Amino acid sequence: MNSTSPINGKSYKVPVGNDEAGIKNFINENRGKKIVVVQGLGFVGAAMSLVVANSKENYAVIGVDTATSGGYWKIASINGGDLPLVSSDQKVEQYFNQARLQGNFYATYDSYAYTLADVVVVDINLDVEKKSSELKKLDDFSVDLTMFKSAIQSILSRCKEDILMLVETTVPPGTCSKIIKPLVDEIFLKRSFNPTLFKLAHSYERVMPGENYIDSIENFYRVYSGINQKSADSAEEFLRTVIKTSEYPLTRLSNTNATEISKVLENSYRAMNIAFIQEWAELSDAAGTDIYEIISAIKMRPTHNNIMQPGLGVGGYCLTKDPLMASWASKEMFGCRPLGQSEAAVTINDQMPLYSLELLKQRFGDALGSKKVLFLGVSYLNDVGDTRYTPVELLFDELVSLGAEVHLHDPYLSFWEEKKLNVEKKLTAKNIDIIIVSVRHKQFGGDDYFSYINSVKPEYILDTLGCYLGSLEKFREEIHVKIIGRGL
Amino acid sequence: MNSTSPINGKSYKVPVGNDEAGIKNFINENRGKKIVVVQGLGFVGAAMSLVVANSKENYAVIGVDTATSGGYWKIASINGGDLPLVSSDQKVEQYFNQARLQGNFYATYDSYAYTLADVVVVDINLDVEKKSSELKKLDDFSVDLTMFKSAIQSILSRCKEDILMLVETTVPPGTCSKIIKPLVDEIFLKRSFNPTLFKLAHSYERVMPGENYIDSIENFYRVYSGINQKSADSAEEFLRTVIKTSEYPLTRLSNTNATEISKVLENSYRAMNIAFIQEWAELSDAAGTDIYEIISAIKMRPTHNNIMQPGLGVGGYCLTKDPLMASWASKEMFGCRPLGQSEAAVTINDQMPLYSLELLKQRFGDALGSKKVLFLGVSYLNDVGDTRYTPVELLFDELVSLGAEVHLHDPYLSFWEEKKLNVEKKLTAKNIDIIIVSVRHKQFGGDDYFSYINSVKPEYILDTLGCYLGSLEKFREEIHVKIIGRGL
Repeated sequence: MNSTSPINGKSYKVPVGNDEAGIKNFINENRGKKIVVVQGLGFVGAAMSLVVANSKENYAVIGVDTATSGGYWKIASINGGDLPLVSSDQKVEQYFNQARLQGNFYATYDSYAYTLADVVVVDINLDVEKKSSELKKLDDFSVDLTMFKSAIQSILSRCKEDILMLVETTVPPGTCSKIIKPLVDEIFLKRSFNPTLFKLAHSYERVMPGENYIDSIENFYRVYSGINQKSADSAEEFLRTVIKTSEYPLTRLSNTNATEISKVLENSYRAMNIAFIQEWAELSDAAGTDIYEIISAIKMRPTHNNIMQPGLGVGGYCLTKDPLMASWASKEMFGCRPLGQSEAAVTINDQMPLYSLELLKQRFGDALGSKKVLFLGVSYLNDVGDTRYTPVELLFDELVSLGAEVHLHDPYLSFWEEKKLNVEKKLTAKNIDIIIVSVRHKQFGGDDYFSYINSVKPEYILDTLGCYLGSLEKFREEIHVKIIGRGL
Repeated sequence: MNSTSPINGKSYKVPVGNDEAGIKNFINENRGKKIVVVQGLGFVGAAMSLVVANSKENYAVIGVDTATSGGYWKIASINGGDLPLVSSDQKVEQYFNQARLQGNFYATYDSYAYTLADVVVVDINLDVEKKSSELKKLDDFSVDLTMFKSAIQSILSRCKEDILMLVETTVPPGTCSKIIKPLVDEIFLKRSFNPTLFKLAHSYERVMPGENYIDSIENFYRVYSGINQKSADSAEEFLRTVIKTSEYPLTRLSNTNATEISKVLENSYRAMNIAFIQEWAELSDAAGTDIYEIISAIKMRPTHNNIMQPGLGVGGYCLTKDPLMASWASKEMFGCRPLGQSEAAVTINDQMPLYSLELLKQRFGDALGSKKVLFLGVSYLNDVGDTRYTPVELLFDELVSLGAEVHLHDPYLSFWEEKKLNVEKKLTAKNIDIIIVSVRHKQFGGDDYFSYINSVKPEYILDTLGCYLGSLEKFREEIHVKIIGRGL
């Protein structure tokens, strides 16, 4: 079995044996340092590893991922001197090189690492399974904790008695107290360990992709809690060494349920406010009004300045699932009613791209299938090249299935990992009938984009984010294109 | 038929004849002044009249209400020198006295006033009829425009050709363009008037009860629009004379649909965010966490600082109906889908007091019906004595129907108008078993309240707003009362 890096294409044979020798060698070279093991080298874990390795405490950091085709390339990249992630944040490479120089960052697949840890940071993924009968209609959903529990068990059955386990994974509220703590008690009983020595804490990151990726961990407010006073104190002590708490003071909450709720509540607040404004945007479109103009008028009030703006849809790893995770916990962990507003938000957001499809169908009818379409933007968020759960996918798939010839452009991307598709980083497509502005990348306001659009002279622009509202007159006079949808 | 002031108890015989003589007399005394007629002397119209009468332009202001038992006392009060409203804002009385001194404010029931107007400001109420099979369960709702149209027709069939009609009533989006404008065209055709001379504009107030009642009109941002350029210009000219636009610049939107949407969107945003947090508060309560602590942690992020706090429920005239008005318009005026998130918000908010009832039932079971209960706060909003649609009503009614002896206290109220019930302005009730903190009045944090509670020593405090969270230790140690619900 091989594991191939989507970043540089390098292929590695997935090892079958253990990595004890590699780990021991690393530890020998880092004698006297506290050992922090980060479980999971994904979007959060990889960045967290770099931050911890570059902290003032000079920890020895071991990142753990799986010996699978999907996981091993990250391990091999890190140990081979290749960055395990792409980011526009220059600090990522700087921190990676610095850690290489210091020799205090190693990656492995071997759970032997847990036996050495002073601190284990849990950064593995935990997903929500959505069930749909119709396209993106959320009929049901569930959270399967099997893999998560197994990952925790893997730590608990090997770790030292008195370590700090800091859970950063977004979990259903109740997980630390109702799932992990009983596992500690059960496994420690078998190991004849004293469970009261074990420190269990929860703290959630507020990581954002983009230019401030590292800063969004290191220089941002953190919320944390412990399963008891000692655990919370221990988490605080650790976080003080990796986060710039002098400028971004820590917030301690009373228990782990509280921080777990806080995390998913934060993201649900955003998801729900996006869903809310989408419904109003559709009304606004039908009423022939400019939703952006309306939102600007409302945002004059400080009490309303968090109001969201509509767009093509909602993507990313968090907003698309966290409201459901919370609602699941509400029912399954605490016997409460589901979080109706939050659940509905996910459905509205998941289906949002279909509204853009509807606008195109209304305009072009069956002819839509014979059009050449260009997406401006493939990522799920402005000014980054992150395609996780991008809402572009649904509209892209639908247009392709209708027969349309679809081109993709994104100034931040040359490859769409999830779809295994090339993305045109430069604007080269010719004879485009329809341009869909699908992300609010800052570049799109530039003169070169106007020149490109002017040279292509598309029949229509579907400006799902109102990027070109400020240039409406220019478009109408010089390109004679009618912008539909949000462009009025 | 008599009409009795709920403010001072004075009773007036409702007149049957016309008031032409009164109006003419007023006009004679205000020769040369532009005449502004304010239609509707309710919560907005009364205050708006005062602001216009005290503006730098020195208008002659005629307030119009109905010659009914519910409306005439306002007219008689104004002309008799009594304030037609209660407010903690000292400017209200000051402005009323100043207008009396200037002799430029008159009130009438006679639609003859419309024949003289240069500007008519429409401030009448427009309600949503809610239909429920179960307690506060919103099965259906509708907006009946009959009365509203009739009020507009009353103006249009009498007014001069080139007046400005400024609609301030919260209306279903589309009302100015699809309802009022066709009425203008139809009636003006009959009157052989030129409808293009008539100026129709919409502008929504952001009036708030309380100490800044007048300022919330005069010193706050305004949004406006016109049915055409000339109407918008005319509205702008008028608003500049009554609002301090140098500090609070006006926002012009492109058309009346836009300002109508903007108004109900603003209020729906609040209503929806309250409903959202209520669902999370229930989860938080079940998880034994402190929702206020969680919200504080989240509000550290500027992107999340509009997040609301849970309470007993939602009251007032706007948040309880505006989301429905918009959803109704979405379906009926524009053929769009309903605004699901906004509709659901109203149901959740309307039912919210039942959650507090549930908490009490869980604690006391059948014994609840034999308890003596005291509400701290009757109004719907903190620091004002406004009981319109107060959520206290539902919980009060339920407790009374269970047989409980219910006492009411509110530092801002001595009478609950809608229920015709006395309210104890001072804390006098003895032998109270349960205290329900139902409004976040600033007084409740004071030592006298603590002393009162200490002297009463209730079995339980249901602190629906977390008012006493900061004094939990004090309560537990000194009063030995366990605060339930939001007080943990």
